[in-house]
Amino acid sequence: MITTDICIIGAGPVGLFAVFEAGLLKMRCHLIDVLPQVGGQLSEIYPHKPIYDIPGYPTIKAQELITNQMEQIAPFEPTFTLGERVEELIKQADGSYHVIGSDGTVIHCQVVVIAGGLGCFEPRKPELANLAHFEGKNVHYMVKDPEQFRDKKIVIAGGGDSALDWTVFLADIAKEVTLVHRSDSFRGAPDSAEKVYNMAQEGKVNLLLSHNLVSLNGNGKLESISLTNKQKEELTVPTEHFIPLYGLSPKLGPIANWGLNIDKNAIVVDTFDYSTNVERIFAIGDINTYPGKLKLILCGYHEAALMCQSAFKYVYPDQKLSFKYTTVNGINAF
Amino acid sequence: MITTDICIIGAGPVGLFAVFEAGLLKMRCHLIDVLPQVGGQLSEIYPHKPIYDIPGYPTIKAQELITNQMEQIAPFEPTFTLGERVEELIKQADGSYHVIGSDGTVIHCQVVVIAGGLGCFEPRKPELANLAHFEGKNVHYMVKDPEQFRDKKIVIAGGGDSALDWTVFLADIAKEVTLVHRSDSFRGAPDSAEKVYNMAQEGKVNLLLSHNLVSLNGNGKLESISLTNKQKEELTVPTEHFIPLYGLSPKLGPIANWGLNIDKNAIVVDTFDYSTNVERIFAIGDINTYPGKLKLILCGYHEAALMCQSAFKYVYPDQKLSFKYTTVNGINAF
Repeated sequence: MITTDICIIGAGPVGLFAVFEAGLLKMRCHLIDVLPQVGGQLSEIYPHKPIYDIPGYPTIKAQELITNQMEQIAPFEPTFTLGERVEELIKQADGSYHVIGSDGTVIHCQVVVIAGGLGCFEPRKPELANLAHFEGKNVHYMVKDPEQFRDKKIVIAGGGDSALDWTVFLADIAKEVTLVHRSDSFRGAPDSAEKVYNMAQEGKVNLLLSHNLVSLNGNGKLESISLTNKQKEELTVPTEHFIPLYGLSPKLGPIANWGLNIDKNAIVVDTFDYSTNVERIFAIGDINTYPGKLKLILCGYHEAALMCQSAFKYVYPDQKLSFKYTTVNGINAF
Repeated sequence: MITTDICIIGAGPVGLFAVFEAGLLKMRCHLIDVLPQVGGQLSEIYPHKPIYDIPGYPTIKAQELITNQMEQIAPFEPTFTLGERVEELIKQADGSYHVIGSDGTVIHCQVVVIAGGLGCFEPRKPELANLAHFEGKNVHYMVKDPEQFRDKKIVIAGGGDSALDWTVFLADIAKEVTLVHRSDSFRGAPDSAEKVYNMAQEGKVNLLLSHNLVSLNGNGKLESISLTNKQKEELTVPTEHFIPLYGLSPKLGPIANWGLNIDKNAIVVDTFDYSTNVERIFAIGDINTYPGKLKLILCGYHEAALMCQSAFKYVYPDQKLSFKYTTVNGINAF
């Protein structure tokens, strides 16, 4: 059994920063993540993509941010269980928790912090007969490495920001980009939509509005996609890759059974300390919701800092918390 | 007259980051600050001091953070009025504001964001007859450059974190450090107090508890400080510098007359969008207060991001806001 003060479920940027803020208050953290490495979606989905909205970094590659954060928390000696999903949460008689992993790992902690981020969601999939047949080869629910589409023919489907943004981005890389959307207008940002309209006019993008997907064709590997237009006329687009970007749906898994207040796929928290309705369980980062919530990494950092102030009273019930700055003396590691 | 979307009062790290978040939503910002340069207390008080709690930076010098933030917001072309204090706020018939500076600058804006930070506070001073006589020479209310005390005899006064932390820090630099405190216990963090007790036992710090300041002595330059102990016996400590660290008291200035809800020297805001009780006026960073508030730069960043979502409706009353990520397409500058 692993014993720690705080068990953090999710080792993405927000979960990692929580280790720092907890460490300043002398609380030890153990992190558990279903992914085989730390960094959450930053390391898993877009390690080489630049991020522009981390305060103080005009631009930083996703993996570099994670590497820096790991260095920042190193003095507080966090421990990790990677590649293991959380299966169960068992409340102990004294109020503490056992967090049980899918491989049988048991983590005893005073406080549970859910920082599951995108890991708690899964892509929405189109209803197409032989979709699974091409998954992992020619069907992609997210763009992990844009370079894999260089000089390829691709079809993107969807009407939100993700579909629009990747259409614009991949038009410069792929040989031919087709964007399919079932409606005649986009849900995404108006200026992104405008860009796509312009690129379609310039012949850089093949735009198929008011079209529905019918089937994926190919023997072993994807060769084309069949569609119908408003008049139910069928059309076949030759393609090597299919990228449906329909957004995410919740996959809270066992977390859904812990009695937490859930609203629109997110865990409802109090902005005083990002606590959930269950004592000793907090939720920070993309997995939580509250009035004004923005799904930004920088917001998760703030949530982590405030959470620790309340977590402290469970870890050190007899101590008065002294708020610690780091400016004069630096950090006092363990 | 300067015309802008958002007038930000205070060009410290939080005010500067607000320019970035506003820029993503196509809102222009003008910043006004009483200091002659951007960066707030980071540039003014401790430019060379390392900071440890900026997420993603294991350590960064204060001035370097400001330099990076200026580069980050450059695409959004912020404009500045520096070295000028805000004197007045005049509401216009259409709801917009004129912000009036002490040199007569007029800034017309749709939204006012107060990010005044420490600039809205002034040091608490001890009541000593000829204090003003030595100010700016041998009396210092904050430590701007620790090196100026190298190999000097110094007296620090106070019982909070600041007095404790600087005593520990300067003991390695100064020739002789005396810490004077009127009580026999410290208000600061227990582990900082313990450090000071240990250093006193080791002879590295001269600790005078339960002592009161009586007078500063010297002709033109400080030579010694007279104190009394509990038994009213007088003691004179030779010193070259006196550093009273009694914390800060509010100096809201004209802001105090704007009808804002003030609680314990801070502006009360709603955590939904960090709005004040006065429409179109927001407060972010160290100047605001709300349940759970922590005076951390990283919290101000979060506040800036959420503030912009509501500011948008005053700047673009006819437009629907589309929340913008920067990950795929980067930033779209003006």
